[in-house]
Order: sequence, then structure tokens, then C-alpha cells
Amino acid sequence: MTSQMAREVAEIPQAARRFLDLSAGPLREAAGALRQAEPRMLLTVARGSSDHAATVLKYAAEMLAGIPVASIGPSVASIYGRPLALAGAGCIGISQSGQSPDIVQMMQAARQGGALTVAITNHGESPLAAAAAHCLPLQAGAETAVAATKTFVCSVLAGLALLAEWRQDRALQEAVAATPEAMERALALDWSPLSARLARAQSAYVLGRGPAIGIAAEAALKLKETCGLHAEGFSAAEVLHGPAAIVHSGFPVLALAVDDEALPHVVQTAERLAAQGADVFLTGAQAKGAVTLPGVDGVHPLLAPLVLAVAFYAFVETLSRRRGFDPDTPPHLRKVTETL
Amino acid sequence: MTSQMAREVAEIPQAARRFLDLSAGPLREAAGALRQAEPRMLLTVARGSSDHAATVLKYAAEMLAGIPVASIGPSVASIYGRPLALAGAGCIGISQSGQSPDIVQMMQAARQGGALTVAITNHGESPLAAAAAHCLPLQAGAETAVAATKTFVCSVLAGLALLAEWRQDRALQEAVAATPEAMERALALDWSPLSARLARAQSAYVLGRGPAIGIAAEAALKLKETCGLHAEGFSAAEVLHGPAAIVHSGFPVLALAVDDEALPHVVQTAERLAAQGADVFLTGAQAKGAVTLPGVDGVHPLLAPLVLAVAFYAFVETLSRRRGFDPDTPPHLRKVTETL
Repeated sequence: MTSQMAREVAEIPQAARRFLDLSAGPLREAAGALRQAEPRMLLTVARGSSDHAATVLKYAAEMLAGIPVASIGPSVASIYGRPLALAGAGCIGISQSGQSPDIVQMMQAARQGGALTVAITNHGESPLAAAAAHCLPLQAGAETAVAATKTFVCSVLAGLALLAEWRQDRALQEAVAATPEAMERALALDWSPLSARLARAQSAYVLGRGPAIGIAAEAALKLKETCGLHAEGFSAAEVLHGPAAIVHSGFPVLALAVDDEALPHVVQTAERLAAQGADVFLTGAQAKGAVTLPGVDGVHPLLAPLVLAVAFYAFVETLSRRRGFDPDTPPHLRKVTETL
Repeated sequence: MTSQMAREVAEIPQAARRFLDLSAGPLREAAGALRQAEPRMLLTVARGSSDHAATVLKYAAEMLAGIPVASIGPSVASIYGRPLALAGAGCIGISQSGQSPDIVQMMQAARQGGALTVAITNHGESPLAAAAAHCLPLQAGAETAVAATKTFVCSVLAGLALLAEWRQDRALQEAVAATPEAMERALALDWSPLSARLARAQSAYVLGRGPAIGIAAEAALKLKETCGLHAEGFSAAEVLHGPAAIVHSGFPVLALAVDDEALPHVVQTAERLAAQGADVFLTGAQAKGAVTLPGVDGVHPLLAPLVLAVAFYAFVETLSRRRGFDPDTPPHLRKVTETL
């Protein structure tokens, strides 16, 4: 039997194409506003999977726009009620539903504080969209599985497309346009060796570097939500500053490697953890003592982590069922989480 | 037998007093430079425990100075080699040893990018201190246990003292001066009910809100380093956006509550997780279905999470031995971690 999550994962390339087609106008408009404003910093406001999308955007914007990006805890506005001085800043709020009151309040506070605000949401009529000066509708269609997949992918793509258009970065623009096809290839990858290892695991780490840190965090969250597995995401450097202590013999580690400047460092961490006994799985690269999982070649380094996310989603849906879970009904969760 | 970690934890109040006495001059100087520069944003650069100290400082600065604070991944400079435009920014680097090359390179890049730089380190002669315009020496004395305790506490205190002096916030200045005494009281607290529950646990969550999120992350890291326990820190709101899925019956949760505007929300999360079967422990407050652990009353809300960290350190050292670990020799770790 096919799960709703599996159907939505299969729709990802099509949803990505729809976003690029239908949101081209709002994208140009928001990018033009950013180009005119020349923000000296960016802020992101998000929770859960959307916050992981914001992490990918953070690294990409720091590298491409050369300005710092701060993730602002929504509680600064929603609970503590402190105003932030934000003249000259851009603020990007990300939320699938556009409804969580804390995200909406922080966006309102950012706009009042002088920031140029952009909402990225699947619901163009939501309170978040209303709170922002610009909105990029995700066009992902209905997503009813509790675990967000296609809205996550479209959120990241929206952020990177906005960045490419704002900076008029031709290489990234072309890479964005080619992403749906790369995602098709990602859906066909076979990660069954990882599935065999995680079938009965209780804990795991997922590692990345740069923009892939956001995908590592997202993968870890999905392992919690759909597989009941205590997975945690880390930077491949950060994991060596303490968390490696619990990586005992046989501890499973998934390292999301992409072909960029960080690759030798990710490989180095993979080899170090393998040497201390971990069962390490590395995407698209070789490391001593680690199992190589297939990746998708020839993708722009800022989009490659997102393409890996698509492969991971297809993988984790099957792992969920293998572990005896129903991927469509994670325990204790609802589709829209509202917090203050 | 007393561990080195226990000796260093016992020295915390004295180390805090020494920092306040001996670093008063550099503190005034750095605060004066910040007052003159009027930065429109702050950046933090740190890894491991020091990054958790930076998280506490982030929330405190956003609330008190009303400017956004971005945590910058050191790799942006050290691996990806991208320059950031940072005129008008303040940049605070935190590192116990002051030696990790990535932190040092990011500080150099920040200074070149136009930021006013401040190093917080226990080693005033370190490369990090040399890279920054200002340095606040922690004065924590030698720390030889691998798990940082007194240097973490002094780092947070240094950040908050700098903020109090910069903003000329009398209430926070007085609270900073009174902290060593509150830390003495924290060392005497009895958290044995939590110890009994965690004696054989494999996973746990530690929750906080606002500045306490940094302490929750630090506590989770210490449970990994010294107890071999897969603990993970979350915001008490964020945990409801997905991670709650693995909180099954009997799953241990430590909620670090302090008496501020977020308290009702932390209590609400505690009650919700208790209702789904978790074994919830809450500091200094009551929640239905949760065990209350003693806290320290009457501490300024921005310092209260740090005082809880001191109570936690004393607790985790005993838990480490109870679980059969030697708190002084966490597996696979060294005192100084150097990453790129």
C-alpha cells in the first residue's frame, strides 16, 4: 500500500516545476525589492522543518550575498515583546501553513522595525502572507501528510531562487531551473544499505557542512517523526567538539557530502568516526571505513544538499514502514503546530 | 574519590568572582567601544560549549540591546573563504582555548570586514585574543577536565557583564555582581530524583526558552560527553514542531524553567509532554504530572539560566559516576578540539 507521504514525495519534482512557473512574477518582484534595498543583513523567522530551510538559505546567502544572516527566535516578539531595530535588514519568514502565531507576530515586529519582509508559505492567503510586504507562494499543492516534504523542498528552492534572482547570479539561476530534473534522478537512488542498518537503531547522527547542515537537521527530524528514531543533526565540524563522545562501536552516522570546498573535511570527519567504530554512510564520495551511498552528480553545490533531501525523503518513507510505523501518522503531532 | 571535574565545578563561584574582579578594566574598555560604535547587529563565532554560551548572549542582547544577533558558521571564512560585509557590526568570538583555527580565521575575517571584534577566552595570549581588537580574559584558572564547566560559566558571565556595562543597565550590573553568591546556592541543590531516572536512560530531551535554550543545549552536550547519554536540547516551543514524536511513555525530559515571561509556556509544554507519558522534571516551578526540582530564587531572569547550569554541572558529575563513566575522560574527546 502506498502512503500519502510516498505520494507527496513522488510529486516533489512536479511541485518544484510548478513553483518555478507560477511564482516567477512574485519572485522577480521580491528580488527587485531586495536589490533596491541592498540589505546589510538578513533575518529568518521559522520553526521545525521551515527553520531547516532557513538554515540552508543562511549559508547560501552568506556565501553569495556576503552579508550575515541571523535566525531570530520568534519568542523575542511573541513572548518577550522586545522590539528590534531592523532598518536596512531583510526578513524572510518561512511557514508551510503561514499560521503559527509566533511566526506571524515576529514578521509583524520585523516590518514595524523597518525590515523589508518576504513570506515564503504554501498559503498565500495566510496571516503570514498578510503580515509581509512580499510573498512567494510555494505552489506545492495540498500537503496532507503530517511530515512536510514537498513544502520543505519548495521552501528551500524558493529561498535559493530568490537569492539567484536578487544577486543576478546566472549560474545559480540556471541550476535552479535544472533542479526538478535532478530531483527526478534523486527519487531513483537506492539507499538500502542504510535502511538495513537503521532498521533497528535507537540513535543516529546526520552530518553536513555549510548549506547541508540544514538538510542534516531536516533528515534527523524526519527520522524522529516517521521512524521513532532519536537522530540528531550536526555540522561535520561541530560533531567533533563534544557530540562524538557517544559515537560508540556500531553507532550509525549518515554524512551528507556534496562536491564543494567542504568535501575533504566531511570525508575527514567520516573517517575519524569510522575509525572509532561508527557505521558511517557517506553520500556520493569515498571515505576509508565508510559505506558510499549513491548521490546525484553535476548539481550546483548550493542546490546539491536539497537534491539529497529528496533522495532522503524517499528513503525515510520506506524505513518508516520497515520499522513498523505509519509514515502518515507520526505519534503526538498534528499538521499545523501553533506555538507562542 | 573526587574527580577533577567535581573540583572545577566547586570552583565556579570563585572563578566567577575572579573574572569580575580582574577583568573589570578590559570589560569597561570593550563596553565603551561598543557604546561608541553603536553596532546595528552582533555576530557570534564559537563552537561546542562556547557556542552555547553565545546562544545565551544572543537572546540577552536581542532583548536588552534590541539588535539582531547572528551566529556565524566559522566555515564561511575558514573553508568557503567568502568575505562578509560587516561595517557597523560587533563580533564576539568565544573559545576556551582561543586556538581552533576556524574560530580564529572567522574573527580575522570579521575584523577585516569592518566589525568591532571582542574575544572572550581563558587564554589572553591565544591566537583568538590576538585576532580581536578587545579581549575579555575569563580568569577561570587552569581547567584540565575535558568537559568545560567553569570556563563555560565565565564565558556566559563575561557576555552578560559586557552587555550590562555597554547598555549601562543598572539592574543587570547588580545582578551580575550578585551571581557568584547565587552560584554557591546552586551547588547545594539536590536533583537526586532526576539522577535516579537518568541512571539507565538512553535518550533524553532538555528544554528551555529564551536565554535558557543555550543552557539546555549545554546540558544536553554534557550528558553526551560525561554520561554517554543521547540527550538533545530544544526550545520548549520548537520541541512541539516535530521532535515530540519520539517522546514515548517514560521518555525523560528536563525542562529548565526560570521566572520570566516564558514561564507559563514552558509549564504548558511540560504538562503536554507529561500528558503523553514523558517523565518530566521541571526546575523551580510546578506543572501537572511533572516532578519539581529545586531552583535558586530571586535571580535576574537573564542570569537565572546560568545559575541553573551550575546546579546541572554538579548534578551531571555525580550522574556520570553513577552510570559507570569517569567524568574526567569522556571517550573520543580531547581538551582542545581544532577544526577547519
